[in-house]
Amino acid sequence: MDLQFLSAGLAIGLGAIGPGIGVGLLVMGALQAIGRNPEAANEIRTNMILGIAFAEAIAIYALVVALVLKFV
Amino acid sequence: MDLQFLSAGLAIGLGAIGPGIGVGLLVMGALQAIGRNPEAANEIRTNMILGIAFAEAIAIYALVVALVLKFV
Amino acid sequence: MDLQFLSAGLAIGLGAIGPGIGVGLLVMGALQAIGRNPEAANEIRTNMILGIAFAEAIAIYALVVALVLKFV
Amino acid sequence: MDLQFLSAGLAIGLGAIGPGIGVGLLVMGALQAIGRNPEAANEIRTNMILGIAFAEAIAIYALVVALVLKFV
Amino acid sequence: MDLQFLSAGLAIGLGAIGPGIGVGLLVMGALQAIGRNPEAANEIRTNMILGIAFAEAIAIYALVVALVLKFV
Amino acid sequence: MDLQFLSAGLAIGLGAIGPGIGVGLLVMGALQAIGRNPEAANEIRTNMILGIAFAEAIAIYALVVALVLKFV
Amino acid sequence: MDLQFLSAGLAIGLGAIGPGIGVGLLVMGALQAIGRNPEAANEIRTNMILGIAFAEAIAIYALVVALVLKFV
Amino acid sequence: MDLQFLSAGLAIGLGAIGPGIGVGLLVMGALQAIGRNPEAANEIRTNMILGIAFAEAIAIYALVVALVLKFV
Amino acid sequence: MDLQFLSAGLAIGLGAIGPGIGVGLLVMGALQAIGRNPEAANEIRTNMILGIAFAEAIAIYALVVALVLKFV
Amino acid sequence: MDLQFLSAGLAIGLGAIGPGIGVGLLVMGALQAIGRNPEAANEIRTNMILGIAFAEAIAIYALVVALVLKFV
Amino acid sequence: MDLQFLSAGLAIGLGAIGPGIGVGLLVMGALQAIGRNPEAANEIRTNMILGIAFAEAIAIYALVVALVLKFV
Amino acid sequence: MDLQFLSAGLAIGLGAIGPGIGVGLLVMGALQAIGRNPEAANEIRTNMILGIAFAEAIAIYALVVALVLKFV
Amino acid sequence: MDLQFLSAGLAIGLGAIGPGIGVGLLVMGALQAIGRNPEAANEIRTNMILGIAFAEAIAIYALVVALVLKFV
Amino acid sequence: MDLQFLSAGLAIGLGAIGPGIGVGLLVMGALQAIGRNPEAANEIRTNMILGIAFAEAIAIYALVVALVLKFV
Repeated sequence: MDLQFLSAGLAIGLGAIGPGIGVGLLVMGALQAIGRNPEAANEIRTNMILGIAFAEAIAIYALVVALVLKFV
Repeated sequence: MDLQFLSAGLAIGLGAIGPGIGVGLLVMGALQAIGRNPEAANEIRTNMILGIAFAEAIAIYALVVALVLKFV
Repeated sequence: MDLQFLSAGLAIGLGAIGPGIGVGLLVMGALQAIGRNPEAANEIRTNMILGIAFAEAIAIYALVVALVLKFV
Repeated sequence: MDLQFLSAGLAIGLGAIGPGIGVGLLVMGALQAIGRNPEAANEIRTNMILGIAFAEAIAIYALVVALVLKFV
Repeated sequence: MDLQFLSAGLAIGLGAIGPGIGVGLLVMGALQAIGRNPEAANEIRTNMILGIAFAEAIAIYALVVALVLKFV
Repeated sequence: MDLQFLSAGLAIGLGAIGPGIGVGLLVMGALQAIGRNPEAANEIRTNMILGIAFAEAIAIYALVVALVLKFV
Repeated sequence: MDLQFLSAGLAIGLGAIGPGIGVGLLVMGALQAIGRNPEAANEIRTNMILGIAFAEAIAIYALVVALVLKFV
Repeated sequence: MDLQFLSAGLAIGLGAIGPGIGVGLLVMGALQAIGRNPEAANEIRTNMILGIAFAEAIAIYALVVALVLKFV
Repeated sequence: MDLQFLSAGLAIGLGAIGPGIGVGLLVMGALQAIGRNPEAANEIRTNMILGIAFAEAIAIYALVVALVLKFV
Repeated sequence: MDLQFLSAGLAIGLGAIGPGIGVGLLVMGALQAIGRNPEAANEIRTNMILGIAFAEAIAIYALVVALVLKFV
Repeated sequence: MDLQFLSAGLAIGLGAIGPGIGVGLLVMGALQAIGRNPEAANEIRTNMILGIAFAEAIAIYALVVALVLKFV
Repeated sequence: MDLQFLSAGLAIGLGAIGPGIGVGLLVMGALQAIGRNPEAANEIRTNMILGIAFAEAIAIYALVVALVLKFV
Repeated sequence: MDLQFLSAGLAIGLGAIGPGIGVGLLVMGALQAIGRNPEAANEIRTNMILGIAFAEAIAIYALVVALVLKFV
Repeated sequence: MDLQFLSAGLAIGLGAIGPGIGVGLLVMGALQAIGRNPEAANEIRTNMILGIAFAEAIAIYALVVALVLKFV
């Protein structure tokens, strides 16, 4: 039973590394692009949010599996 | 039985590292390209979504295996 | 029972690596962009906070799972 | 029997790291190339999809092995 | 009972890696931006403190979980 | 018997890391080269496919060993 | 009882990696900025000390947890 | 007997990391060189194939050992 | 009793990695800054010693915990 | 007896990482040099083959030890 | 009793990684600075020795703990 | 007796990583230098072979220890 | 008794990583500085030897501990 | 008795990583410096051999410990 808890912890623990760094990289790219070309800020923000949504989704997958492993 | 849970946790936990960083890298590239050349924003966004779809698909594979290991 | 505690520790311990580096990367990008182009500071700050919110959210997921593993 | 599940989890978990980062790198290269030279967008997109297909294939191999280990 | 202590140690030990590097990266970016553009120092400092607060918060999460695992 | 499954999982799991990153790197180089010099696109595509074939072959080796370990 | 000691050692041992590198990165950035722009030295030093304080705080968290695990 | 299978899996799994990345690096270099200097494409392709052959040979060594461990 | 010794060894062993690299990074930055701008050498040296003091302090924390684990 | 097989697998598996990356790096350098200076192609190819031979030799050492561990 | 020896070995073994790389980085920075600006050689050498002393001190801490673990 | 085989495998397996990458780096440097300055090719080749000899010697040490562990 | 041998092996094995890379980095810096500014060769060589001495000393510490663990 | 063999294998296996990469880095630096400034080739070669000697010495330490662990 306890191994179930451990697997939930590893799922979200390891699963947060990739999206966390990914969100950091893509927003860094977005902000540097805005800093160079503020007129394109609207276009950049739209795509940035799109990219964040997909990176965040990967973290959500890990969260869902962790909660499923804990409660189901 | 418990090892089954652990394998599900590892599948999505490890499987989220690659796509998470991958999505971050490709959207960063997209936004920097838009910042340099806003006229190409439509072309870039189309390809960015294409790339995200394939990177996301890899995370979905890991999610599917994790859920299969948990429920089947 | 003890393995439950260990899983909570690993969840937040590993889960803090990605968002911690991610927040660092994106704010670094934001500040360098402001340093180059202070007129765009408002636009950059708005997007920076947006990005921090999503990166922080990933750390919150790990925190929630850790607390759930500890208390529920 | 349980070790079989663990091997499936490791197969797709570890196997998603390489292709995930690979897809991210190649689409990043593609988008930066389009940003610099939008006239070559068709040529670049063709090759990008070609590259994605092969990188995705590697993830598919890992998925196939994981499913074979689970069901066969 | 002892595993409880180990989990507390791992929570804060691993959880300090990400925010520690993150704070270092973002303040490095802030100081380089000030060095290039001292007139924007007020704007940069405001955003730097904002970013530090969120990165520090991730370390606080790990600290809270470690203390909860030790005392509760 | 179970260790046989684990070895198949590790073979394809670890074996996908190198070729996955490798394909990503070489297609990234190809697309950046096309972006800079679209006239050489035919020559570059020929060599890119050649390189992909050899990188893919390494992943196939790992796949073959994994399937052999599972079925033979 | 001994595992308690091990957890204290891991807490401060792992917890010193992040802040140690972080302090190094941010002071490196500060000194390079002063080298380029000595007139901004006061402003940079103020922010550098601010950043060091927060990075040091993360190491203090790890130290506190290590001492709590040892003595309480 | 099972450890024999595990060793075959590790041989090809670990042995594919180096050549996989190596092939990626060298073809990337080749394609960037062709992009800059298409007139030298013949000379570059000859050397690229030579380099691929030797990198591929290292993966073949690992494959041979893996198959020997499995069948002999 | 022996695990107590191991924890002391890990505390100082792991705890020396971060500050060791950190001191190296910050002094490297200081010396490059002096090489570019020798007139600012006094200002840079003052801040360098300040930064070293805080990085060294993190190593001292690990040393203190190691000695406490050994002797107390 | 089985540990003998495992050691052969680790010998060639780990031993292929270094030479694999090494060959990739040196051929990449060779091809970029030819791309910049095609007149020196003969001189570069001679040295490239020399370097490949020595890097390949290291992989051969690992192969020899792996085969010796398996058959002798 | 033997674990005491192991802890001494790990203390100095791991503890030498950080300062070893740190000394390498800072002297590399010093020598490049002298190469660019030989007139500042005295000032740079003074600070280099200062930095080496503190980096070396971290290695000494690990050595002291290792010897204490062995002999006390 | 079996552990003796494992140690031989680890000796050459781990011992090939460093020299393999080292040879790759130094030949890459040599070829890029020849590409830039073909007149110095003789001088560079002499030193390259000298460097390869010493890097190869490190791999030979590991090979010798591996063979000694196997046969003596 | 055997663990004593293992600790000696780990002490020198791990302890050689840092100084080995460190010496490589600092001599690389020295030689590049001489290549740019041969007139400063005497000054650079003096400091290079000074830096090597301190980096070598860290390896000596690890050697001394390894020998002490073996013979005392 | 067998653990003695394992420690010898780890000593030279791990101990070859650092010097192997170190020699590669420093000879790479030397050759690039000669490529830029062939007149300084004598001075650079002298210092290169000096640096190789010290890096090689670190590998020798590991070799000596490995042989001492095997034969004494």
